Amino acid sequence: MSKEITPRSQDYSQWYNDLVLKSGLADYSAVRGCMVIKPYGYALWENMRDALDKMFKDTGHVNAYFPLFIPKSFLSREAAHVEGFAKECAVVTHYRLKTDESGKEVVVDPDARLEEELIVRPTSETIIWNTYKDWIQSHRDLPLLINQWANVVRWEMRTRLFLRTAEFLWQEGHTAHATREEALKEAELILDIYARFAEEFMALPVIKGIKTPNERFAGAEETYCIEALMQDGKALQAGTSHFLGQNFAKAFDVKFLNRENKLEYVWATSWGVSTRLIGALVMAHADDDGLILPPRLAPLQVVIVPIYKGEEQKNMIDEKAVSILNSLKQAGIRARYDDSDTARPGWKFAEYEMKGVPIRLALGARDLQNQLIELSRRDTREKFQIPIDNIVSAVNDFLAQIQHSLFERAKTFRDGHITPADTWDDFERILNEKGGFVSAHWDGTAETEEAIKEKTKATIRCIPLNPVAEKGNCILTGKPSNQRVLFARAY
Amino acid sequence: MSKEITPRSQDYSQWYNDLVLKSGLADYSAVRGCMVIKPYGYALWENMRDALDKMFKDTGHVNAYFPLFIPKSFLSREAAHVEGFAKECAVVTHYRLKTDESGKEVVVDPDARLEEELIVRPTSETIIWNTYKDWIQSHRDLPLLINQWANVVRWEMRTRLFLRTAEFLWQEGHTAHATREEALKEAELILDIYARFAEEFMALPVIKGIKTPNERFAGAEETYCIEALMQDGKALQAGTSHFLGQNFAKAFDVKFLNRENKLEYVWATSWGVSTRLIGALVMAHADDDGLILPPRLAPLQVVIVPIYKGEEQKNMIDEKAVSILNSLKQAGIRARYDDSDTARPGWKFAEYEMKGVPIRLALGARDLQNQLIELSRRDTREKFQIPIDNIVSAVNDFLAQIQHSLFERAKTFRDGHITPADTWDDFERILNEKGGFVSAHWDGTAETEEAIKEKTKATIRCIPLNPVAEKGNCILTGKPSNQRVLFARAY
Repeated sequence: MSKEITPRSQDYSQWYNDLVLKSGLADYSAVRGCMVIKPYGYALWENMRDALDKMFKDTGHVNAYFPLFIPKSFLSREAAHVEGFAKECAVVTHYRLKTDESGKEVVVDPDARLEEELIVRPTSETIIWNTYKDWIQSHRDLPLLINQWANVVRWEMRTRLFLRTAEFLWQEGHTAHATREEALKEAELILDIYARFAEEFMALPVIKGIKTPNERFAGAEETYCIEALMQDGKALQAGTSHFLGQNFAKAFDVKFLNRENKLEYVWATSWGVSTRLIGALVMAHADDDGLILPPRLAPLQVVIVPIYKGEEQKNMIDEKAVSILNSLKQAGIRARYDDSDTARPGWKFAEYEMKGVPIRLALGARDLQNQLIELSRRDTREKFQIPIDNIVSAVNDFLAQIQHSLFERAKTFRDGHITPADTWDDFERILNEKGGFVSAHWDGTAETEEAIKEKTKATIRCIPLNPVAEKGNCILTGKPSNQRVLFARAY
Repeated sequence: MSKEITPRSQDYSQWYNDLVLKSGLADYSAVRGCMVIKPYGYALWENMRDALDKMFKDTGHVNAYFPLFIPKSFLSREAAHVEGFAKECAVVTHYRLKTDESGKEVVVDPDARLEEELIVRPTSETIIWNTYKDWIQSHRDLPLLINQWANVVRWEMRTRLFLRTAEFLWQEGHTAHATREEALKEAELILDIYARFAEEFMALPVIKGIKTPNERFAGAEETYCIEALMQDGKALQAGTSHFLGQNFAKAFDVKFLNRENKLEYVWATSWGVSTRLIGALVMAHADDDGLILPPRLAPLQVVIVPIYKGEEQKNMIDEKAVSILNSLKQAGIRARYDDSDTARPGWKFAEYEMKGVPIRLALGARDLQNQLIELSRRDTREKFQIPIDNIVSAVNDFLAQIQHSLFERAKTFRDGHITPADTWDDFERILNEKGGFVSAHWDGTAETEEAIKEKTKATIRCIPLNPVAEKGNCILTGKPSNQRVLFARAY
């Protein structure tokens, strides 16, 4: 095989890069930190987007589109927000180029300087709340349940394909409510949607929790999150949903007349998931031979490969394969018949394994005689002889089984990597030797959180929702604590 | 009615702005020249996008995503391209902000200046062809049939909602081919898709043609276009498909080994339509009371409004209306039951007329007794009494009729506004008094084209495809000509 992937055991990080590049998900670009999402990666993103979009719409949300640019002064309005966000971003200072005196080079026209610089949105709370001011007067204008699919830019210094890129694609929901309770309920509803999406579509088990004040979104009063575990034992934040209180309403002076005819500030949430999820999907399921994609999101669910000698066999197989292909497609299964003559079956097998296609069907002349077809599962590599007449229902069954078993496998791994620690030695040893989440007591202070991070590089990933009340002592300071929290090293 | 629209006869331009704002399609934003696409406008765009996306995919195209930013030097590579494009665009010069000495203001960090400025893409030929260089080695890598849905920025001085905005949404296709013929065929295939989309979905009749060299896309060898006519007699370019020859392949050194094992430059096309189409849709069909949306694209196709006195009537009507709503939805019709008690039926009628919802159903207590429902067409304002049992098939029939009749009405108007002119006096008179397309002879020179533009503000919209060969004399210079071209004042 020409496309070799570095084994996980040798270099996990290189394994990930090899996979993303060689499976055709993404490529580097000429612009520092920005990636090209290749057709295969984008098809995966479209499936993720469509599934999420339906969940949002089913719960009453609508899409809209707000400007790419944010006036610089908007960022100063919400004090915590600017501290956390405004710093590393792309700044537009001019609006025109011109040809230089040599007539050969293009240069920035110094006469075309903007009066106020524009920031390429790193997130859109400010521009959206500045707009909501015009849209909200009365409680009858509420709730506003708006989502946006967009690109955003954060000038990250160290970037990794999908996981951390300067530009990425995401959705950002921005809702406005008449009451605190309703806004909190919205933030929790979205967290549930994210968790369901991760588990049911991505086959990725997640832990729902809240962030410590340290790790909160800049400008939020509460940040809900879902946390997932990768195969190398590092955690990955897969989605966040923020209860913003009245912070942005106050910053942009957005008030409404409530039912008692009194002016009141509006309550807000914001929430987002991004193309980062593709990185999570890769790292959660893939192996040393390539991607393993969950059937519900796989751009291609089934590939049919013909195995033949000579024209005559090819023609016979073609006919049957096309008829199988059509039956699969009619049943709504994303399938392709790869009869290209430029590669041998073995090469194709490796190629579709690399691409993580859940099911491969191989059809040879002898199979045809026996009215059988060979079905291979990408996840377990098991092979089955399936009666051709029964192929559609068998494929449907296997797709459901694969989806289920990917989730179970990831869950078993994840559950096996939530380890309680009650002494500092255990805590450090688990982090260094086993990885995963360490469930430990914490005294609730930012100082301790920071100290643990400095000593171990582990952060508090979340304070799990619906915790078991359990008194104990902080893993570092020994001070009293009422609940365990989850620590991990993270992406 | 609180939301008054300026009549077309009084001020066409103000009528358009009123419509877009008051129907909830879009809003101005705090960023000069950038608009907010509101939920109703975005839902319309989603329907347009989905229809086009399906047409692209059905013809073998795939989606991908390329960076928002283009290194400044890329623009200089293709000489004609930089002349036509590079000038008015947003330039990113810095990548960091910082808090100033007062601690209150955010300023651009002078230490964070980019080595090379980045341009926010006004179109993506350069960054994409720079990428294709890595993806194309052999004829086996061709064709590449890639499309991208994205935002782009062109720093327009005078902007209008949807028609001309600094930032807009669009799709841009960028294909790579082994032969000139195949690339030309692709450009023409896309032109056909655009024309079909305009006519079958937007109910907008278009003329297919090619642009004169003057009006060509910067860097193209041939620009195909579809041209539509608005109600004020001005033309609007609704989509372009460019045959780029080998210009970008040469600029970015993209060669492939052909079947004869020789290195050859790759052939290219690019093509795009944008949110500008929403402006065209509005101006082609709307009237003084609001939008008139073609059913195939309307976010909401049917609204049901209850007419009742008292709780008891309301409950009876509710039950029936919900059952009708469900039947309509089950038949795949986008319908809503508006039983809000904050507005009277007359207000709702005006509101949904403003929003251009194709069909309104009004259900009262007497209707219920008679098992009838009142159906109103937005386009003709005709009303019909429909047996409730028959409502789904009646609605389906009317939706098809409305779609058809909007197209016919626009086509009758358009056809009545293609006027031949054989003398300069006629030419000017038609432009000034009647408007629309003027079909006239032209001597084929850029000088004459420019002179006519200066005298009349009319441009050559296109040289129609499949013309009738007809010898004549140029409308301005009297020099010989072999074909009439279409002139018009345009958006």
